[in-house]
Amino acid sequence: PPPALPNVEEDLIPPENFAIVAPGVYRSGFPMRKNFPFMETLRLKTILTLVLEEYPEANLKWCQDQDIQFMQFGIPGNKEPFDNIPEEVICAALVQILDKRNHPLLIHCNKGKHRTGCLVGCIRRIQSWSLTSIFDEYRRFSNPKSRAVDQQFIDLFQLSKVWEQVLSTEG
Amino acid sequence: PPPALPNVEEDLIPPENFAIVAPGVYRSGFPMRKNFPFMETLRLKTILTLVLEEYPEANLKWCQDQDIQFMQFGIPGNKEPFDNIPEEVICAALVQILDKRNHPLLIHCNKGKHRTGCLVGCIRRIQSWSLTSIFDEYRRFSNPKSRAVDQQFIDLFQLSKVWEQVLSTEG
Repeated sequence: PPPALPNVEEDLIPPENFAIVAPGVYRSGFPMRKNFPFMETLRLKTILTLVLEEYPEANLKWCQDQDIQFMQFGIPGNKEPFDNIPEEVICAALVQILDKRNHPLLIHCNKGKHRTGCLVGCIRRIQSWSLTSIFDEYRRFSNPKSRAVDQQFIDLFQLSKVWEQVLSTEG
Repeated sequence: PPPALPNVEEDLIPPENFAIVAPGVYRSGFPMRKNFPFMETLRLKTILTLVLEEYPEANLKWCQDQDIQFMQFGIPGNKEPFDNIPEEVICAALVQILDKRNHPLLIHCNKGKHRTGCLVGCIRRIQSWSLTSIFDEYRRFSNPKSRAVDQQFIDLFQLSKVWEQVLSTEG
């Protein structure tokens, strides 16, 4: 007879808006305790957050227990009116994401829609995706609240700054 | 001075609703000629389609040129009224998706929303995701046209049938 069916663990709960961006790069909303069992299956090496506020003690402790390095590139999450998204913060985050020694890596903000959407849009720029395809993906995550300021940021973002930092000698 | 900036190829255009489901497993809408350059970056081994109609000659030729095996598990794409999604077809497709010798593999239907959404929902069942998380992902791709019949199919799908086929001796 065939071996027994694999035992079904209790349900694993990915964080809100979880998805795979690229091999070794994940995105989501803010991880909560109930998401920890699922996140352990990812064998993360790095958590990169875009939230500005102080990180919750429970999450920091979990990172230490899991031997996961914690990186914070804080960006204000406020909505319109038009406020500029700090280009140098996104650039610094991209440099860490491009460094495979930090993979597997999870990018998250609060909902996993806007700040994370901006950063992933810049990753797609680096991957030479067409702008239309980048915006389709951005809207899929940010619907129904897509923001023109985010899409404009992705469109105007200068990749040369990222390469300069990645290639800079004192790197 | 740092080496020259990497040359920026013309834009790569992923097929509509393209995403990574799991390492080596992708999903999308129907690939078109303009998507071929992007798809070549995936180094696919298998294309698994859920469309019922005859596959376009140009796409078949491209598969042959790329040495990609072509699998068709046709499912009618019609909408309500309630029609049952053929469980044994989804089951047969899952058996091929679970076989890593077929990876990297692209799953597609027409829009990459409903039939593909059902199949990916069953993959998440196999990965023990909670139903809420499975439906969140399903809706993110099928919005604004999410279908209760798809979500019910995912909920009621019996994994034991897949395991029986995978483990069956004459496999």
